[in-house]
Amino acid sequence: MSAIPEEFVQKTTELSGEVTRPFPGSRKIYAQGSRPDIRVGMREIEQAETAASFGAEGNPPITVYDTSGPYTDPDITINLLEGLPALRAGWIEERSDSECLEGPSSEFGRLRSSDPELAKLRFEHISKPRRAKAGANVSQMHYARKGIITPEMEYVAIRENLRLERLKDSGLLRQHKGQSFGASVPERVTPEFVRDEIARGRAIIPANINHPELEPMIIGRNFLVKVNTNIGNSAVTSSIAEEVEKMVWSTRWGGDTVMDLSTGKNIHETREWILRNSPVPVGTVPIYQALEKVDGKAEDLTWELFRDTLIEQAEQGVDYFTIHAGVRLKYVPLTADRVTGIVSRGGSIMAKWCLAHHEESFLYTRFSEICEIMKAYDVSFSLGDGLRPGSLADANDAAQFGELETLGELTKIAWEHDVQVMIEGPGHVPMHLIKENMDKELRDCYEAPFYTLGPLTTDIAPAYDHITSAIGAAQIGWYGTAMLCYVTPKEHLGLPNKEDVRVGIITYKIAAHAADLAKGHPGAQVRDNAMSKARFEFRWEDQFNLALDPERAREYHDETLPKDSAKVA
Amino acid sequence: MSAIPEEFVQKTTELSGEVTRPFPGSRKIYAQGSRPDIRVGMREIEQAETAASFGAEGNPPITVYDTSGPYTDPDITINLLEGLPALRAGWIEERSDSECLEGPSSEFGRLRSSDPELAKLRFEHISKPRRAKAGANVSQMHYARKGIITPEMEYVAIRENLRLERLKDSGLLRQHKGQSFGASVPERVTPEFVRDEIARGRAIIPANINHPELEPMIIGRNFLVKVNTNIGNSAVTSSIAEEVEKMVWSTRWGGDTVMDLSTGKNIHETREWILRNSPVPVGTVPIYQALEKVDGKAEDLTWELFRDTLIEQAEQGVDYFTIHAGVRLKYVPLTADRVTGIVSRGGSIMAKWCLAHHEESFLYTRFSEICEIMKAYDVSFSLGDGLRPGSLADANDAAQFGELETLGELTKIAWEHDVQVMIEGPGHVPMHLIKENMDKELRDCYEAPFYTLGPLTTDIAPAYDHITSAIGAAQIGWYGTAMLCYVTPKEHLGLPNKEDVRVGIITYKIAAHAADLAKGHPGAQVRDNAMSKARFEFRWEDQFNLALDPERAREYHDETLPKDSAKVA
Repeated sequence: MSAIPEEFVQKTTELSGEVTRPFPGSRKIYAQGSRPDIRVGMREIEQAETAASFGAEGNPPITVYDTSGPYTDPDITINLLEGLPALRAGWIEERSDSECLEGPSSEFGRLRSSDPELAKLRFEHISKPRRAKAGANVSQMHYARKGIITPEMEYVAIRENLRLERLKDSGLLRQHKGQSFGASVPERVTPEFVRDEIARGRAIIPANINHPELEPMIIGRNFLVKVNTNIGNSAVTSSIAEEVEKMVWSTRWGGDTVMDLSTGKNIHETREWILRNSPVPVGTVPIYQALEKVDGKAEDLTWELFRDTLIEQAEQGVDYFTIHAGVRLKYVPLTADRVTGIVSRGGSIMAKWCLAHHEESFLYTRFSEICEIMKAYDVSFSLGDGLRPGSLADANDAAQFGELETLGELTKIAWEHDVQVMIEGPGHVPMHLIKENMDKELRDCYEAPFYTLGPLTTDIAPAYDHITSAIGAAQIGWYGTAMLCYVTPKEHLGLPNKEDVRVGIITYKIAAHAADLAKGHPGAQVRDNAMSKARFEFRWEDQFNLALDPERAREYHDETLPKDSAKVA
Repeated sequence: MSAIPEEFVQKTTELSGEVTRPFPGSRKIYAQGSRPDIRVGMREIEQAETAASFGAEGNPPITVYDTSGPYTDPDITINLLEGLPALRAGWIEERSDSECLEGPSSEFGRLRSSDPELAKLRFEHISKPRRAKAGANVSQMHYARKGIITPEMEYVAIRENLRLERLKDSGLLRQHKGQSFGASVPERVTPEFVRDEIARGRAIIPANINHPELEPMIIGRNFLVKVNTNIGNSAVTSSIAEEVEKMVWSTRWGGDTVMDLSTGKNIHETREWILRNSPVPVGTVPIYQALEKVDGKAEDLTWELFRDTLIEQAEQGVDYFTIHAGVRLKYVPLTADRVTGIVSRGGSIMAKWCLAHHEESFLYTRFSEICEIMKAYDVSFSLGDGLRPGSLADANDAAQFGELETLGELTKIAWEHDVQVMIEGPGHVPMHLIKENMDKELRDCYEAPFYTLGPLTTDIAPAYDHITSAIGAAQIGWYGTAMLCYVTPKEHLGLPNKEDVRVGIITYKIAAHAADLAKGHPGAQVRDNAMSKARFEFRWEDQFNLALDPERAREYHDETLPKDSAKVA
């Protein structure tokens, strides 16, 4: 009998109904790779024929990028209590460079796994953690640099191409020549191109060997622009189900990765549930949990405690860590004249620590030791911008740009360890100062992928900050940012609910796609062309089905023109 | 006793409550000009003091641009049945270059005013129409070119400056140097600067002498970026009140002008109600009404009928006319290979007419005669982009750009008549092709103000096209567009309701403001700076009050943190 409370079991059953509902007019398809176990999930949207009055012709199905994993495959039975199938388990095992441990090697992990009080919260099918064998490095960057094309690399290559070759006679591939500001986007992504981009650090595949459930995806300037979403709040029992639901909800609407920012006392258990059920990479900010372990007193943080937290989370399967190692002592005084000081939570924790101890933080001084941990599990760095501007007034100032230069130094160190890196960026920036951020990041951080929060282009519209920031996100995506961290309408005001998450994601899918179009990404305009043709031919059902949010499009249409006849007019 | 039905009277009473509610923490103020009757309405937002923990200091009130007119002045009693006070009546009269007619000089206007069946719909206090005396020209451009600074010009100068001088010791004027792409924005707007900009055609003040109720505003690249909203649908009796309500609602949230796109048989009466109660300029597309008069048969349209419609609307007080005079016969075949053909309603009406008659449209051939009408009332041209792209695929094509060149030729002709002109622009354009639109417009249309719809930067997000287009609108505003035509979430799907109108306007206020900031418009950052300081100091009430949508910001905050204590933390 399960130790999980009935209430939780019920909640997870409710969830399945809502999030596994297939998208209208769509079916899950799998593109086959070079071996039977490389099967890349995509969504195919059917189209109706063109009516006789417009020339009667067939319209091909459109293949779209699909982040929803098994949840929208009607052939797979979802059971959140058991977790998703371990898609990558064989790939990881066959590399023979990692081994299963007897149990968690972090002190905290051992404590949690042996506490009988936690049985009612604990995921029941935890695998033994896996770690690189002594001396081995299991990062995708390490393989890439050795010339090895991993199944993960092939997977993302197939995924990025979206079976475009099927449309070559359709006329839908017509698109404007883009302006990519020096990006090197290929006509067709090959596994070798992926390998090369990973090897030179220009792209990453966040894929911890302890998160075999994930469907590999790539973050880099020469690939489709991605969207990260954030989940997590308090972690009382009942909310574990809520957080899992939000994660699945996020993947349904197109979140490419998800950051778990949960706080509270059951953060470890919440994370396990999320990871075991997440088809997308999961990121965290380990310093948040470390701070909980010292009851919120930043000055009490120690390297030993932080190290234990990194190992704890790495052995659960977290795919990337936000680490604010660029908050150096010398930059802190530069924030004194700011309008909004230090607004990054991680940044202010580390600034407080630096000032209290009057020394460089252990994140900075122990950076090489952190790299050793990262490469033993293939956790990617998301080097945090602890000094990002919290207002237009503070944009592009000495503190922000000083930190960015330090992130560049740290990138070099990480790369010496073959550890994958992306760089976090702002924040609040007026439009005309956005490009400077991108250009400086490319230069100072050697083209490591940039991952930005917005930026918000004005401070005066709380409740609409998904929009103030989508304006900036689309631009910085165009200029070269590889992944956009979404912002919801509740930014600055409160915690997002499910509807806010949905609106935030769709808004950012728009920004990312607008960027792909402007860069001239091959095939980026296919869905736009199909939509426009359907619009011109009054194929309403196709317009809904091709939309980023088919359900909302239909609902809005039906509000004022509810009759079926209005849809085929 | 009033002939207006009781139901209508009741509706207008309901309306007053909702739209005259003052904004929280705000008061209506008037900036005094050089003479007693120049009093420019603005909104002043009070701020609380900074708490002791943040240094205990006063925070000055912030003056913001206010489009809501008398509706948010608690000292003015609104009576929609009587209309707004005729603010400009004295200015118009003292110029002694216009005269009151005995009644409408259009045939249609006479028919409507004498039809007893319409008494129940008709606004009861219609003034006699006013027209330039024989040989006179009453356009603001005409005065400007004669070196005359009108009260309207002084009014907009004061309005644009927003009493910035009051903040000179506050620290809030700090802002980034902008990038304006060659705009000539002055540090402080003087009436002479306004006159000069109007004289050279680089800005317009849409202000029909038959719309004395309006508060003058200016549209030009060297002024604050403005937002137009659209209202109007069917015109059955009950909906007149609805349309008036939408107009007032639009001005409440920041619509700078409003286009009345009403259709149906009582369009003339609906327009009268809107004009008599509108504090902002009202635009129309006269060809829509002309088409109604020929039962929707485009080929039956004639110059005589169109001319009568122009005079009818000009004598009611419409401030600008969208006229698709650039749809020339030679451009129509250029649209044959498009994905979405001709999507502008006015454009397709005129293309149909041109093809049916196989000759240039009367809008083009009679353009000088149209100018004669415009200058007799000071109606501004909004030269319509009848061939704008309806999809990304069709952006920046030969049809669109050919028409734009023709609009440039027509601009020159209008200017020979001292008639004010703005130019309409697209549409659907990927980000990297937006700037070409602006640059070409500036060059081909001699810097006449550009007025664009979006542009939408992707086609795939129906239900979110306020966002797909705000991304483009912010950019084109930054590059030099003077006014942005809003798009609501219902674009492509249905008719917007009040909530859609509100969301559409706020979204476009964001785009316009982001553009002002990027251009480095003097004082543009004041409100952002005040908001950011309030945010840093946890002054929640001030954050709500300073927001573009104070009500929504408070509502979102209170959803998850409803306690008063959470607001002063």
